Amino acid sequence: MKKLLLFFLLLPLINKAQYADDSLFIHKIAVNILTSEAAYNNLFYLTKKIGGRLSGSPQMYKAEAWGTGALKDAGADNVILQQCMVPHWVRGGIDKAFVVYKDAEGRRQKYELNILALGNAVGTGAKGIDAPMIRVNDFKELEAKKDSLKGKIVFYNNPFDDSLINPFYAYGKNVIYRGIGASRAAKYDAAAVLIRSMTNSPGNYPHTGSLRYADSLKKIPAAAMGLEDVKKLDSLFDNNIRVSCTLYTYGKMLPDTIAHNVIGELTGTEHPERIITVGGHLDSWDPAEGANDDGTGIVQTIEVLRVFKALGYKPKNTIRFVLFANEENGTRGGKKYAEEAKQKNEQHIFALESDAGGFTPRGFSFNLNDDAAWQKVNSWKPLFVPYYGDRFEKGEAGADVGYLEEALHTPQAGLYPDSQRYFYIHHAATDVFENVDIREMKLGAINMAALVYLVDKYGLN
Amino acid sequence: MKKLLLFFLLLPLINKAQYADDSLFIHKIAVNILTSEAAYNNLFYLTKKIGGRLSGSPQMYKAEAWGTGALKDAGADNVILQQCMVPHWVRGGIDKAFVVYKDAEGRRQKYELNILALGNAVGTGAKGIDAPMIRVNDFKELEAKKDSLKGKIVFYNNPFDDSLINPFYAYGKNVIYRGIGASRAAKYDAAAVLIRSMTNSPGNYPHTGSLRYADSLKKIPAAAMGLEDVKKLDSLFDNNIRVSCTLYTYGKMLPDTIAHNVIGELTGTEHPERIITVGGHLDSWDPAEGANDDGTGIVQTIEVLRVFKALGYKPKNTIRFVLFANEENGTRGGKKYAEEAKQKNEQHIFALESDAGGFTPRGFSFNLNDDAAWQKVNSWKPLFVPYYGDRFEKGEAGADVGYLEEALHTPQAGLYPDSQRYFYIHHAATDVFENVDIREMKLGAINMAALVYLVDKYGLN
Repeated sequence: MKKLLLFFLLLPLINKAQYADDSLFIHKIAVNILTSEAAYNNLFYLTKKIGGRLSGSPQMYKAEAWGTGALKDAGADNVILQQCMVPHWVRGGIDKAFVVYKDAEGRRQKYELNILALGNAVGTGAKGIDAPMIRVNDFKELEAKKDSLKGKIVFYNNPFDDSLINPFYAYGKNVIYRGIGASRAAKYDAAAVLIRSMTNSPGNYPHTGSLRYADSLKKIPAAAMGLEDVKKLDSLFDNNIRVSCTLYTYGKMLPDTIAHNVIGELTGTEHPERIITVGGHLDSWDPAEGANDDGTGIVQTIEVLRVFKALGYKPKNTIRFVLFANEENGTRGGKKYAEEAKQKNEQHIFALESDAGGFTPRGFSFNLNDDAAWQKVNSWKPLFVPYYGDRFEKGEAGADVGYLEEALHTPQAGLYPDSQRYFYIHHAATDVFENVDIREMKLGAINMAALVYLVDKYGLN
Repeated sequence: MKKLLLFFLLLPLINKAQYADDSLFIHKIAVNILTSEAAYNNLFYLTKKIGGRLSGSPQMYKAEAWGTGALKDAGADNVILQQCMVPHWVRGGIDKAFVVYKDAEGRRQKYELNILALGNAVGTGAKGIDAPMIRVNDFKELEAKKDSLKGKIVFYNNPFDDSLINPFYAYGKNVIYRGIGASRAAKYDAAAVLIRSMTNSPGNYPHTGSLRYADSLKKIPAAAMGLEDVKKLDSLFDNNIRVSCTLYTYGKMLPDTIAHNVIGELTGTEHPERIITVGGHLDSWDPAEGANDDGTGIVQTIEVLRVFKALGYKPKNTIRFVLFANEENGTRGGKKYAEEAKQKNEQHIFALESDAGGFTPRGFSFNLNDDAAWQKVNSWKPLFVPYYGDRFEKGEAGADVGYLEEALHTPQAGLYPDSQRYFYIHHAATDVFENVDIREMKLGAINMAALVYLVDKYGLN
């Protein structure tokens, strides 16, 4: 309670006249963004004309070229391509799996699962893997059954905890099965793993995403299935029916390849040496169009630049609009950006990332260690109320800008949209243009522009 | 600023131990609702098995019977059917309109518009109306052109103001063209009106809704079209092409008929004479399933009852769960409820309505005159933060409970969901089960149950 009280006692950090000016300028930002067609057109191009753009894919290079042009069109003083080496994983074919079992009359039954191999995973190749399946709900059950895993396909079936209000927490609890489930099963000589997708979505779409193999263990194939397939499999296992599966995946990790962070700059008029970073990530998973993950973050980043130029706003500090490379399966873009910043001894005063979907905004998640900065930011809260962006929480800001925190302790924030529907589309074939609401995405951009404007004008100290 | 400060100084209205108890109970409400299938099943039945349920339609009676059963199943001590007379408008056929014009080569061109007659409107009948069209953007332009309206079909083309953050404000500005546009044009002997739908939706769905004829003027047919048809028509008018239209609508107002407010009660253990009302409206427009308008409000109302019973909560005051009749084209249910309350000298301490869609919640719109009550309510705000329902604003609560305010000055609130996508589905064929997110609807129900619980426990004085 005392902390909340403190916020409001600190409101006079902006005086009334300043407050009125800022309120007016942010309103201009809102009107400009809501009535402009730029965001729609940019998202349409990135998703429908380019599409999925995994690191190393031809679409990734198209996206880099498009991003360079889009930042120039939006009015960047200059656009820099910052080179980095990225993992180059290819899906290599159409993933398939078939379940085989005997029904109550002893007849052989076979049906197909709708699967997607996990990113970074090795494939089974064309000869496939044909093996009995074993179901485990968690790692505890895996350990209990460790002696019966040899040669089996392990089916990880840990569901999202629906009682958690924010689905990101449910995801956070479960994503470990996608991340290290394969290696944990390989330790006991399992042949492959099939996981319940990281989703609470009612449909049957499989959701891909990165896995990480332990170096010391055999790399085994891994894929995800949708929740209707999970239900069907569950009913077989619940009836103690012996199930086997034939799995075909073709994933392959090629040698690292060249990619780029695409960086547009607005040079600061008073402190060009002080840098504010705004960004999202340009790469996306291959089964869809990377619309919410993270096309909307890219479009919002460009909107902040576009609206500043359109309104003639000349920032005091240099603002960098960064379309990060390779967030999905390596975060090498974020790493590179922070490494170079440290190497060049750059002065980074703030970083903002949008990588939680283009849904209607709630506010920001701030990664700030400084109490004074946190209080100052909170004194701005009333300015965000009209744009539904006034929920300020402490938490992680984003995977890409996170490296700046490590390298330079840069204060940072992530846009915090409503997340109820995020895991319906995350890394699945449903992450398409049609599942973005343009107004909701624009509201996010308005709040981002407002925050960057306030940090630029008042700083965080 | 000072007002905000006041809120937080008043937080000690609940002491720490109470706060912990309340926080815990509300968390139980949340877990129960999020993990129950009741809300899904109820919404599915109401939308898919019953469907659109306009006042006087067979579906309305089915919905009343279903609602009676659903309130009993949820655990109401008793269910009362409160009779009222409602308007009985029927669409009477399939609305059609064809645009005819001559192209640049002088050839006759004809195409069909996708239209819906407005509710309460008279029809053209089977012989239709064939007349030249005239476009006006607003009433000012209508007045300027009053001498050329005779025998014409007036096309009202006033767009939503996209620069307004909350689309309800844009709707509020424009809905007058749907409400009284027909009579305003009839004053100058227009033959019919076609309006630009009350929507900012990208598609071409027409949106129906009530009109009100002026008693003194001729009743002329009226229908709405979707925005793609508006664009096509605009391009003809912008090129000064003479456009005519053939319109077929069949709307008819039959004599008033019997309907019912369906009322479930939980009798108060300490003050059975004090009444808290929670409700939504059971009727809906005919072209769709009335999913967000107001199936979700009905389902949330039943959820509040269900969760109280499931958790063994025994309210101090009597809580009435009201499925109101006839909100869409008469609000006779709300009127009747308030009239009877006044007549019986009932003591109504609070009323809560959900009729703004089943989208992810933001908070509540409070219609309270008492400063102390407003401060008390605001002292509860932190309890709503975890459930995304902590935006408390002053404003209207809802059309149905509004009559209680008039009759008895009952303090009241309306659930305030995110509204960015509401006018995509409002009164259109898109208001179907598939366009409701079950988790978002449930979050609304959690916040409603929490507010009713707090008002029941602490009162508003």
